[in-house]
Amino acid sequence: MEQTLVQNGAVKKVQFLPAVNDDHGGVIIELEKPMDPNVFHIMLRSSLRQWKLQGKKVVWIKLPIELVNLVESAVKEGFWYHHAEPHYLMLVYWIPKIENTIPGNASHRVRIGAIVLNEKRELLVVQECSGKMKGKGIWKIPTGVVEEGEDIFEGAVREVKEETGIDTEFLEVLAFRQMHKSFFGKSDLFFICMMRPLTFNLQKQDLEIEAAQWMSLDEYAAQPFIQKHGIFKYIKDLCFAKAEESYPGFTPVPIKSYFGEPTSYLYFNEDGLVQETSAIYL
Amino acid sequence: MEQTLVQNGAVKKVQFLPAVNDDHGGVIIELEKPMDPNVFHIMLRSSLRQWKLQGKKVVWIKLPIELVNLVESAVKEGFWYHHAEPHYLMLVYWIPKIENTIPGNASHRVRIGAIVLNEKRELLVVQECSGKMKGKGIWKIPTGVVEEGEDIFEGAVREVKEETGIDTEFLEVLAFRQMHKSFFGKSDLFFICMMRPLTFNLQKQDLEIEAAQWMSLDEYAAQPFIQKHGIFKYIKDLCFAKAEESYPGFTPVPIKSYFGEPTSYLYFNEDGLVQETSAIYL
Repeated sequence: MEQTLVQNGAVKKVQFLPAVNDDHGGVIIELEKPMDPNVFHIMLRSSLRQWKLQGKKVVWIKLPIELVNLVESAVKEGFWYHHAEPHYLMLVYWIPKIENTIPGNASHRVRIGAIVLNEKRELLVVQECSGKMKGKGIWKIPTGVVEEGEDIFEGAVREVKEETGIDTEFLEVLAFRQMHKSFFGKSDLFFICMMRPLTFNLQKQDLEIEAAQWMSLDEYAAQPFIQKHGIFKYIKDLCFAKAEESYPGFTPVPIKSYFGEPTSYLYFNEDGLVQETSAIYL
Repeated sequence: MEQTLVQNGAVKKVQFLPAVNDDHGGVIIELEKPMDPNVFHIMLRSSLRQWKLQGKKVVWIKLPIELVNLVESAVKEGFWYHHAEPHYLMLVYWIPKIENTIPGNASHRVRIGAIVLNEKRELLVVQECSGKMKGKGIWKIPTGVVEEGEDIFEGAVREVKEETGIDTEFLEVLAFRQMHKSFFGKSDLFFICMMRPLTFNLQKQDLEIEAAQWMSLDEYAAQPFIQKHGIFKYIKDLCFAKAEESYPGFTPVPIKSYFGEPTSYLYFNEDGLVQETSAIYL
């Protein structure tokens, strides 16, 4: 982008960085090609002046990791880090004098714990090779991190399959725990999921799992560690409640968005809602 | 850190970067003081050689934004971005030849929607000043982003207070939606919360809220937009279900962790669990 300016009687070509407007009064610069850091710095200054005059609020710069040599110039101009992914860094700058209303970074990781009960009241349990439970001889339910872009129900089925070789059908979320300062100062949402086994032959993963087995619910519950400690005690109680088929969890139902966003899933008590709404609308 | 090496008969001082070991076979470099980029680069190379010989797996470098001039050297040595917060950038390097098992970055933002029903079957509703609902004349429940380190129930109480001036007591999570690619490619977990109003005089926030009022549930539900569209239809159904007091949600209960982590909250159907476990243990 180029613009002609008359300064002290001399005509001068001023170049601005290529930017697109966002929906919230901001502009986004996405650079892809290499650029001399000094040229970038000068263009960024002129562009910032321009955007201030135009009344813009926020300026975003998305820099691929290959353009790491431009980061310092942006920070010198007052930009700060918003977030980073392996292949890029997002920098941000707030123009108005009032307090910034820039949306935050992602704040939570999502994990699942899978309660897989067979018809003989046996629970699918594992011992882990590493982490805090290592070498303690404690049998626990399979757990794992839900991947970026993965649904909770998908992540639960995948983790059980990876760790134990068992195929499962996702049934419900029975409970979830929110914990802060869990990793890198970030928070953790841990969803306890009810699953139905579709196969029964164990084939444990060697990298993460020391041992896997089907264990009677009573034997599992009798472990002193399980009986005593916070989340483990609740998981045990949920196992018994579900073995009696009495505890109402949340099931995922696909919903379409009005604004053309991708299909998402709402987890709720389907029975509770269906009965109620039909009673009202009849 | 300094070490004496004998190379080609000459005694040479080699300096390593200060690092501490983590629990997973890795090392963490946390620099705080300014450093010449060339000196940093040389020390990083020697240190990396050293850690490879020691069989380390992962090297983390946490650089405060003030040390932005060191980022380029780290990337040149093969480091990539792991995550960033306004005041620092975390870089990471994987040493072994096998596929990396580095834990992912935070993947989700957490938002709440608050169903605040008074005893006259009136719902607390707002119209927003900006965003996708702007200027459409649609009355909706208050929504907002849960802050870093904030509990879902705290965030819901805070948002309702900020947007409408109404004090509330958090009761239950009624449902939650998981949606992907919601902002910067990240995912969104939206918790629909049931709240009891403790005060009734509206005092709307001017920055984000165009209008706020108590609206009869029937009038709210009669809005064509609400009747038709995915998540809005479900929220309406949940309002009616709760007005009849029949729908079982999840309530937060504090739990202590075995491993000395901070107190966290488990959200589950307390009635469902208590009845069941007392039945079993009696």
